[in-house]
This record gives sequence, structure tokens and C-alpha cells, in this order.
Amino acid sequence: MTKLKYAVIGTGALGGFYGGILANAGNDVHFLFHSDYDFVRKNGLKVDSIQGDFHLKNCNAYNSTEQMPVCDVVLVCLKTTNNSVLKKILKPLLHENTCVILIQNGLGIEAALAADFPGLSIAGGLAFICSSKIGDGHIAHLDYGRITIGSYQGDNKEIIEQVCSDFNHAGVQADFSDNLEESRWKKLVWNIPYNGMCVVLNTTTERLMHFSKTNDLMRDLMFEVIGAAKACGVNIGDGFVQAMLDYTLKMKPYAPSMKLDYDFGRPLEIEAIYSTPLAVARKHGFDMPKVAMLEQQLCFIQDGYILLSHIII
Amino acid sequence: MTKLKYAVIGTGALGGFYGGILANAGNDVHFLFHSDYDFVRKNGLKVDSIQGDFHLKNCNAYNSTEQMPVCDVVLVCLKTTNNSVLKKILKPLLHENTCVILIQNGLGIEAALAADFPGLSIAGGLAFICSSKIGDGHIAHLDYGRITIGSYQGDNKEIIEQVCSDFNHAGVQADFSDNLEESRWKKLVWNIPYNGMCVVLNTTTERLMHFSKTNDLMRDLMFEVIGAAKACGVNIGDGFVQAMLDYTLKMKPYAPSMKLDYDFGRPLEIEAIYSTPLAVARKHGFDMPKVAMLEQQLCFIQDGYILLSHIII
Repeated sequence: MTKLKYAVIGTGALGGFYGGILANAGNDVHFLFHSDYDFVRKNGLKVDSIQGDFHLKNCNAYNSTEQMPVCDVVLVCLKTTNNSVLKKILKPLLHENTCVILIQNGLGIEAALAADFPGLSIAGGLAFICSSKIGDGHIAHLDYGRITIGSYQGDNKEIIEQVCSDFNHAGVQADFSDNLEESRWKKLVWNIPYNGMCVVLNTTTERLMHFSKTNDLMRDLMFEVIGAAKACGVNIGDGFVQAMLDYTLKMKPYAPSMKLDYDFGRPLEIEAIYSTPLAVARKHGFDMPKVAMLEQQLCFIQDGYILLSHIII
Repeated sequence: MTKLKYAVIGTGALGGFYGGILANAGNDVHFLFHSDYDFVRKNGLKVDSIQGDFHLKNCNAYNSTEQMPVCDVVLVCLKTTNNSVLKKILKPLLHENTCVILIQNGLGIEAALAADFPGLSIAGGLAFICSSKIGDGHIAHLDYGRITIGSYQGDNKEIIEQVCSDFNHAGVQADFSDNLEESRWKKLVWNIPYNGMCVVLNTTTERLMHFSKTNDLMRDLMFEVIGAAKACGVNIGDGFVQAMLDYTLKMKPYAPSMKLDYDFGRPLEIEAIYSTPLAVARKHGFDMPKVAMLEQQLCFIQDGYILLSHIII
């Protein structure tokens, strides 16, 4: 088994940690940077991690994929709101068997990529992690870290298992999922209620859980997602709802990623996390009224501050 | 037909205008004041109205119903969140045929009063008005003013018609409703979407209407209310929804009463406008998921700032 060459697209909270920990363990990793490219060329990439801090002084940093080598694995760690760039920038990284792994939340993102790159080897990754970019070339990994990867299209089971093995050797629990669709829906059971409600009510998961009416609402939203998954042929047992509620009650009060995006005035991942799941469920005859309302509210909120940021800029 | 003696309980935005305009037209009106009693005793009650300003220099002001005369009609213009005081303060105003008219929003309030005063002559009033209290003994009447009154219990059709006639003579359009339940549900078709959503999204009716996703949401919420009314035996045609949407689009951008309550840190009328309609509909086997979610969100919001105001005090 030859060593894999990795590209990381989007070296932020996710890509900085996952790519960084692979590089730190001796893997061949090439990072695409955006705003902090110059900084990283000079100072390297720092990761403060609960698993131990590390500093990649000479990481392979690029500001364009055209300078990057062809790779065996591309880890896409962008926000889904930026996925439209993939069509333009992915090509220089691809050889015949390159596997592109979308480590992103939501639904329908692999299908969108497959439409632009027919026949491409595509996988999806679900990251269960609490990390954030706290400065130029500086990532803080605060908690968790597990990743689940499953195939979307292409004969890529072997390479995905090798990626999982590389992660496991680097100290990150990585599991191969033989049902990516199920993994994505399961993650939505958490993401849909907490991401959106923390934004709409400008609050934390902890406060949502400790007030009885919103605790009920979290459960209602989860059951709608479970119902939608079932309508789409993905059976998630009802017990999963209670497990997610219990899990969240025990979590430290971190802000979900959409709340961070909201707080920093960044676009919200409404399409991947809400609009597409709603549309897919509707196509299967299933309605999620409370999820739909949450999407309507989020669109309104984003419209307000995106307009505002245009005015300020 | 003898002249009616009126009591006004709660001389704020509503009571100050409706009681004031009756008194200004020569009716015998007795006002219960709370925080601004001393001010009004000295300075009277001022109403700045689009129909013409007036100043009741010597209005019959009281700070306790025990000093007030027995009346033929009691206009209850409190917020429903204060209705628990009625049990304590109403008795001194009542003779055998006194008609108590609850000029308030929401559902179930007459039933609650009837439970405390079996056999009392009770009516409900729906006010279509934009007014606010802008200072001690000072009311601003900005727009509209129509009132609809219907009987809840007791043989009071004649007295209600006389009240309507007094209002009409005073320059306020007042109509007798022979179906109070229908009138209340119809008002809820507007109140439920706009009051709550202006609070949750901290916005105006105008912005909700001009953004397509929230315009859809307003319609969704209205159809849920129409469905609930139907389940409760009240048929409101679907066309009423479009009429309400068109009406709101043409409205000047006033803040709904619940938004004003929210902005001034007052308790929200969640029970009368949301919780009771939800419970009544559920009893008839009808679910309003989006209205239910709105209620859950409003309870969370109120819990947060009521707690906060306790801390500040």
C-alpha cells in the first residue's frame, strides 16, 4: 500500500485540524490557503489541540490549486456556501483515481459535485468536532474530533479505508460508513435543531435544553428529521432522538457552527442543512413543518444581515 | 333607553382611547388608573387622536374599584396577562345586569372570567386600532379604531347594541357580532402570525411581508389558524387569508402590540393568543405545528427577559 498524497481545500477550523494532524503524523499533505497564505508561508500552521498542540513550521502552503501537485485524496473542508468554487479549482488536483472527500454538513452536496464532475470518485465525511480558527494560520481544537467517511460514487472503498487508517494512526478516530446517506441524515438530526435555533433565538444549546418548551421543540424537530429520513428510505430508530438529547445535555455549551457563522457575519449553510433536506423530503411526500419554519426564519435573518454587510462594505 | 354608566378597567392605550372618546362625547365614564392616578387627578387625561385631539380635564379617575360606582357596562382594557386581578377588583362595579366587555385579544378569556363569576353577563370586544400610551395620562391614537362586540353569556344583546350605538355616536365604528367565537378566530388569523414573528425576528410587519420566505410563512401560519378554527366549528373562508395579507401590505408599518410589549420588557400575551388556541385546537384533534413552534420560541424569549428583569430589579 503506497502512501497517499493529500490536498486540503479550505484550511480553516476543520481543514487546519484534520489536514494538520495528518501532516504532523508524517503524511504528505498540501494545503490551500486563502486570506492567511502569506502569514502561513512565513510562520507555518499552529494547532492548539486538546490532544496536544503542534506547529507545522514548514507546511506545504499554496494559494492556488494550479501550483499544487496532483493528489490521491482531496479533503474539501470549505463551508458548503463556498462549494461553487470547486468547479473552478478542483481540476489541477485530480488524477484518474483521485478521491474527493467532502467533509461538510448537510445533504445533496455530493450530488452537486457529481453533476459538475461525472465519474469522479466522491466520498462524504461527517466531522464530530469542536474547533475554530482563532487567527491567521492558527486553529484551536477544543473537543471531540471523530470523523465518519462513506462513499458516494466510484470504486473507492479501499482508498477511504486507507484514509481512515491514516487518521487513526494520527490519533483521530475515523470510521468507514457503508451508508453515507444514513450518516448524513443522522448528523442532520442534531444539526437541524441546534444550528438554526441557536441563531434564531440567539442562544446556546445549553439554554435550549434547560428550558422545557425549547427542549420539547428540539425533540419535535428531531422527530421531523427522523420522519423525513424514513420517507427517503433511511431508517433511524426513534431511540436516536433521546440519545441525541442526552448527548447534548452532557455537552459543554459550545456554539454550533452556524451560530459562529452568524456571530461573525458569514453566510449561513441554510441550503445544505435545511433547504435541500426539506426539498428531498417533500419529493418523497414528507413535510417537516417546523423545520420549514426554521428555514424561513433563517433566510429572513441572513437576508437582513447580508444586506447590512453590503451597506457597511 | 336610559343612559349607560361605564367603568373602564385599565386606562392605557385601549381604555384611554375608547373610554376617553365615550366620555368626551358626554357619556358617564369612570376610569380605573394605576401608576398615573395622581397625575390624572391633577392634569386630566389627554388623547392625541387622528380623529381630533381632546383633553378630559376632570375625568372620573379612581385608583381602586371600591371607590367607583356600580356601573351598567365594564370595559376591561387590561392586557390579558393581568386578567387574574379581575376576580379581586370587579365585584364593586357589578349590579344584577352589569355587562362586562373584555376588549382584549386571544381566546378563552371570557370562559376564564365566567368560571370566576358564574351567571355574569359577559361580552367580548375586538379592537382594530393602533394606539399607545405615550406618557402619564397621555394616549396617542395613531390609526384605525373600529371595534366589534359580541355576547359570550347572558341576555345582553340589547345592552351591547346600546354600547355600539354610544360608540358610533362618539365617532368610533362599533359593530355587534352575533358570533363572538368567529370574531375572535378571525382576529387570531392576523394576531398569531404578526405579533409573534415580529418579536422572534425582532422586526416589522412590513419587512416580514416584503421578504418572500417570511411572506410565505405568514400565509402558512394563517392557514393553520383557519384550519384550527374550522376544527372548532368556525368556518372562515380561505379567501380571508389573502385579504389579511393584502390588508397588511397596505398598512403603515406599525409594531404589533406584542412587539411593543417585548420592546418595553412587559409580559407577552402568549397564553391568550397562542397557548389557549393551540390547546383548544388540539382538543378538537387539530395540530398547528408552526404556531406551536412560534409559541415555544416566544416562551423561551419571555423566559429570558423576565429572568433578566428580575435580576436587574
